[in-house]
Amino acid sequence: MSLKKNKKIGHKVTLTDVGELAGVSAMTVSKVLRGTGRIPEETRKRVRLAAQELGYVTNQLASLLAGASSNMVGVLIPTARDVVYSDILSAINSELRPAGLRTFIGESYFDSDVDFEQVSSFLSIRPAALILHGGITRKAETLKLLKKQHCPVIQIWDVENTDFDISIGPSHVEAGRLMAEHFLSLGLERVGYVGAEMELDICAAVRANSFERTLNAHGVQLIRSVAEDLPRQAEGGEILTRRLLDHHPTIQGIHFLNDAMALGGMRVSFERGISVPDQLKIGGFNATSYVHSVRTRLTTISMSYQNIGRKAAQGVIALYSGEQVPQIQVEPITLERGNST
Amino acid sequence: MSLKKNKKIGHKVTLTDVGELAGVSAMTVSKVLRGTGRIPEETRKRVRLAAQELGYVTNQLASLLAGASSNMVGVLIPTARDVVYSDILSAINSELRPAGLRTFIGESYFDSDVDFEQVSSFLSIRPAALILHGGITRKAETLKLLKKQHCPVIQIWDVENTDFDISIGPSHVEAGRLMAEHFLSLGLERVGYVGAEMELDICAAVRANSFERTLNAHGVQLIRSVAEDLPRQAEGGEILTRRLLDHHPTIQGIHFLNDAMALGGMRVSFERGISVPDQLKIGGFNATSYVHSVRTRLTTISMSYQNIGRKAAQGVIALYSGEQVPQIQVEPITLERGNST
Repeated sequence: MSLKKNKKIGHKVTLTDVGELAGVSAMTVSKVLRGTGRIPEETRKRVRLAAQELGYVTNQLASLLAGASSNMVGVLIPTARDVVYSDILSAINSELRPAGLRTFIGESYFDSDVDFEQVSSFLSIRPAALILHGGITRKAETLKLLKKQHCPVIQIWDVENTDFDISIGPSHVEAGRLMAEHFLSLGLERVGYVGAEMELDICAAVRANSFERTLNAHGVQLIRSVAEDLPRQAEGGEILTRRLLDHHPTIQGIHFLNDAMALGGMRVSFERGISVPDQLKIGGFNATSYVHSVRTRLTTISMSYQNIGRKAAQGVIALYSGEQVPQIQVEPITLERGNST
Repeated sequence: MSLKKNKKIGHKVTLTDVGELAGVSAMTVSKVLRGTGRIPEETRKRVRLAAQELGYVTNQLASLLAGASSNMVGVLIPTARDVVYSDILSAINSELRPAGLRTFIGESYFDSDVDFEQVSSFLSIRPAALILHGGITRKAETLKLLKKQHCPVIQIWDVENTDFDISIGPSHVEAGRLMAEHFLSLGLERVGYVGAEMELDICAAVRANSFERTLNAHGVQLIRSVAEDLPRQAEGGEILTRRLLDHHPTIQGIHFLNDAMALGGMRVSFERGISVPDQLKIGGFNATSYVHSVRTRLTTISMSYQNIGRKAAQGVIALYSGEQVPQIQVEPITLERGNST
């Protein structure tokens, strides 16, 4: 994961060459390619086309042949079907593209063997950088492979396990604590937790443990309703909420692994005539679109996924520019209170 | 878009070599790498690791240097933030990965200049194939570039504009017709349509026009509330529904560009005390998770996004195997009736 300092992206063609063709200054070219500054879209397009025409950024194959690293950035996420990652991915693309970098994406499904395969595959085309999701137990082999590389490795989502050039994400310890403190402030004494695939997703486990620890410190016990084989979607939330309520009908509040599962919990409450939030408080995590249903607004933990993606991409660019970048970047989170608690 | 027939994926190492190392038959290796057959996960892992160890699929750089095309498949989508595309993408990955192919993803934002840039960038690394979203007006330059290539080009989402090796998607004409017929069967006479970015998204425009044509054929006029600059999310749906109801308070049913916008429409109805479906019927499109909110089930058009992605990936593999593949593959759609109509 060591880094070639001051290694420039791009090859023989200079910013000045591109600027001359586009009829703008080299500074403007630089801004457009870095996606900074307030530059009219018309100018941006002209610069991008000039850069393309001169092969400033696109001659990928030539650069591979020259033994340089490519302009490709490998991005590994657990699954594109998770709205959190598709938002982060979209932000990564929107930063990297103007800088002449291209992403290629892989999915790990939180499976450490697939993770190893994907990382190997990324490295086989000599990427300019890797952006890897955290929250997974990586195999020793994968870490060894990463350590041998000369490209920056940036981790997103996990800031607790930080053996990378940059780690960017929320503090999952704080997230669990925030929701516990909210439940405690409402005077709840019988609290449940609903989640799935907790053994694979380290970050979810960290949040749940922090939630439990904070409750315990105030004398409140937690009852978990967790399954490894259910989807982390509304359907999984429904099944697990039913189980929890069947065995612990006097429960006063449930924290869910994510908003999708919390939506399932709300459906079960509605079905059973349990009034939310009067009889049962419900707390989610993610602040996704599920939050604002037709008449229910879920209490949840919110953060900017766009920011996480943007900072990961900016980290790549900054590292290549030889800029100093903080190794750990904790993205702030807030508890957004809806009408479900 | 012509195709090198019978071109095999993979290089010097044979399936038999991989099978010997993994202790299974060449047939089993083939099944694992193609992701077909009922093979225990344990065996699949062993085969994948053997293939990797022998460099059956991963030596990307070597194959580039040898002048062969790479094992990379470029996938272009409008945006990863659209749940439709993240589902398709996930299915593509899950098919291509076991076949030793890797995807890299780009986003066009329905911008034809960005589309051109992305296609150029994909082509610069000599992809094994391209999977491109339809529904966009591609520039003549882009089409020229694609025609010169020797890799298969597969289009997803649009089966009306079919100048590609394979086109896979729903019929948007049928989708618009289905919803119109549903509204007509309910006896509606004052009908509205809410959408955004219709000028960019050809497929959405095709659906809306087909919806309107079918209504008109039965003597029903359509009132459109459309904006080019609003998000295609619940927020956009709220704003446009308010506008529509302000000017046409007697409207009896609204068809929305997608479920997210329809959710916004439902919120506005709730806010204004307009009963859904008694006073106002609401129809969406996509059958996404928005559909099943806590107590409302949206009437919507549903199809399998997984199937679309899977078939696109299978198309890539089939074309390389020299198999005959139908050039146009129309994915069936159904109207799912909820309690919003």
